[in-house]
Amino acid sequence: MKLTELFTKTSKTVPADETAKNAQLLIKAGFIYKEMAGVYAYLPLGLRVIENIKQIIREEMNAVGGQELLMTTLQRQELWEKTDRWDDQKVDIWFKSKLKNGTDVGFGWSHEEQITEMMKSYISSYRDLPFSVYQFQTKLRNELRAKSGILRSREFIMKDLYSYSRTQEEHQKIYDELTKAYLKVFARIGLGDVTFVTYAAGGPFTPYSHEFQTITDAGEDTIYLDRERKLAVNQDVYSDEVLTQLGLDKTKLEKLVAAEVGNIFSFGDVKSKQLGLYYADQDGTEKPVILGSYGIGVSRLLGVIAEHFADDKGLVWPESIAPAKVYLAALGDSEEVKKHADELYSILTDAGISLLYDNRNIRPGEKFADADLIGLPYRVVISNQTVANGTYEWKERTNNNIKQLNRDELLSLLSATKN
Amino acid sequence: MKLTELFTKTSKTVPADETAKNAQLLIKAGFIYKEMAGVYAYLPLGLRVIENIKQIIREEMNAVGGQELLMTTLQRQELWEKTDRWDDQKVDIWFKSKLKNGTDVGFGWSHEEQITEMMKSYISSYRDLPFSVYQFQTKLRNELRAKSGILRSREFIMKDLYSYSRTQEEHQKIYDELTKAYLKVFARIGLGDVTFVTYAAGGPFTPYSHEFQTITDAGEDTIYLDRERKLAVNQDVYSDEVLTQLGLDKTKLEKLVAAEVGNIFSFGDVKSKQLGLYYADQDGTEKPVILGSYGIGVSRLLGVIAEHFADDKGLVWPESIAPAKVYLAALGDSEEVKKHADELYSILTDAGISLLYDNRNIRPGEKFADADLIGLPYRVVISNQTVANGTYEWKERTNNNIKQLNRDELLSLLSATKN
Repeated sequence: MKLTELFTKTSKTVPADETAKNAQLLIKAGFIYKEMAGVYAYLPLGLRVIENIKQIIREEMNAVGGQELLMTTLQRQELWEKTDRWDDQKVDIWFKSKLKNGTDVGFGWSHEEQITEMMKSYISSYRDLPFSVYQFQTKLRNELRAKSGILRSREFIMKDLYSYSRTQEEHQKIYDELTKAYLKVFARIGLGDVTFVTYAAGGPFTPYSHEFQTITDAGEDTIYLDRERKLAVNQDVYSDEVLTQLGLDKTKLEKLVAAEVGNIFSFGDVKSKQLGLYYADQDGTEKPVILGSYGIGVSRLLGVIAEHFADDKGLVWPESIAPAKVYLAALGDSEEVKKHADELYSILTDAGISLLYDNRNIRPGEKFADADLIGLPYRVVISNQTVANGTYEWKERTNNNIKQLNRDELLSLLSATKN
Repeated sequence: MKLTELFTKTSKTVPADETAKNAQLLIKAGFIYKEMAGVYAYLPLGLRVIENIKQIIREEMNAVGGQELLMTTLQRQELWEKTDRWDDQKVDIWFKSKLKNGTDVGFGWSHEEQITEMMKSYISSYRDLPFSVYQFQTKLRNELRAKSGILRSREFIMKDLYSYSRTQEEHQKIYDELTKAYLKVFARIGLGDVTFVTYAAGGPFTPYSHEFQTITDAGEDTIYLDRERKLAVNQDVYSDEVLTQLGLDKTKLEKLVAAEVGNIFSFGDVKSKQLGLYYADQDGTEKPVILGSYGIGVSRLLGVIAEHFADDKGLVWPESIAPAKVYLAALGDSEEVKKHADELYSILTDAGISLLYDNRNIRPGEKFADADLIGLPYRVVISNQTVANGTYEWKERTNNNIKQLNRDELLSLLSATKN
């Protein structure tokens, strides 16, 4: 895409009430727009990152047999009353409203109740199990405060998966598979080295749940990490007793600030019993279905990645999720430069290599600053000098080495890269 | 996908309060689930159709330069007060709630106000214009009644595009381009022959808006169609005066029931003036931006298509949007049949041909009934007889001709088809 056609612009200023680094950077670079506190729109560049993250998650969820669907935002009161989560005293983040006939409705902040109720229409026999379903859903949560940018928003995109199993053993197998799938997701989007399985608070059925915590100063959690074993404990459950149970050595643990980018949770048969989801086993007996719940914060990941990789010049995108691969900057206003840049733009576009083409009539320094702020993996510069030399100037966003490449070298480098 | 793995099942019954044919069929075939009146979840097969429709729309919007973004569901009261559309007396379909601090918020039933307000951050000069942006958004509308299935829901998916232009002439050019793009969309999804540009009520700035009306008994509109000129007039504005203005001959018009699947609308400078969206022209004068608004009902299309093509046996999907291309049915329980069917499933899957593989242990008649109900374009049957003959039984959903094909013929037919 040509920057003269992209409607967004980079900006040096952000809304006065925006204190989170992730949102500040993403607003300046034109990736998101702040609608109100904790509510952000995704502009073209931001939406591309979101879609790239979603696609990686989708591939990994499909690989373990997940079936994608899409539940509704509008929620029925009666379902949530069955699990005692309708009352504002019990769940304090509901948005609620009323239908014209006076019926109360809620706006989905989670979908366990709704999806489990629905499964009563599709599960009756042991033959129907096990399976997993997932969705990418916009969740609405009426947070008292929203001050961490897109790390804790009132409206955010989440991938939530639900597994339905016959037995605890069957459930555990799916749970373990999904743990691995989650680690693959975080590795593919560039956070593999800083994201750790973390023991956290469980519930009535299970002593622990598992979080996936990414080390970042922007986080709201504190974890104790055994880096060698790649295992952590959330401060919420941190105690000598727990460390002993998990076989962790207190002296080896690092205390770190982290952001929860995913979590997985065993519900056992608790919700199934509350909502009445049973199956007939081979011997004819009625048994409650075993439920697991598995979340990834998609829009939160956008913020965590923005904040984690950024340097003092701006954003730095891992190639697998970058909104485009190449920032092509044509310097000066000579016709020769324009001709060469237009030509390279066509060649790369035809080759399916995504790029932003900075064809604006502004100073080179401004183009370099925007290239750094927007943070695409590779920058290619065309100037009078490169045209005279028959070369292209090449630089990676993550270092300052500038190389002069001929066309073959350039194309071969770009086709060898991952995106 | 194998049907033994798909969690949904076909059903002979539907909720007692479901009177719309489109929703009845889609529920029976396992494409949607009714959450409450006018609120439906999309199950895997239904979501695939939705995504296929979205992708066709996306391609056509991108082809005319549309930039995809995603606005928020949560809406600020003050914006809508500026255009006098916050008051429930003025707009009677709002869902509203409150933030924890008592601030009123609305849930997006439209996004013109929000997106136009946002553009004040990105439009200042004539150099910034023209451009178009669009989104696929879940809209929430508190309808008094919801009785047309997914043709008029309280929660539905819409593509909305907004164009920003400097002059009326520039706007008209985009408006005409989008009219053509819309006709391409409806042609590609199979409704080209029954969808017509229809003159409808305008507003303060324009005598008419244009609707895209699809002829179907499920519709809620009445139109008068000149089939030869492929132009219609909505009953709302039908009068001798209007016919004269549009040069339509009353005696040539057919009175028909139709569903509005799209609409395009010129706002002129009305909204820009209300919200304060101005640009500096070349001569330095401040001028209001000219706004156009262009909608397509994505989930409504799912319903219209379901209802339009269905026959007495079930759904019939146009190939371009079908949830899969082939329904592969293995008959009987012989190992030979299973081996051949498994093998064909692998071959087609590897070739990237989407299919549902009915490997369930049920009677042939049930498989045929489900194949018809689900409505994929092609049915391939493998039985003891076809194995003995070295053939595959082939049938298209739209006719009753059964052919015996050898493998080369089958693969060549499938790779020649469009999807």
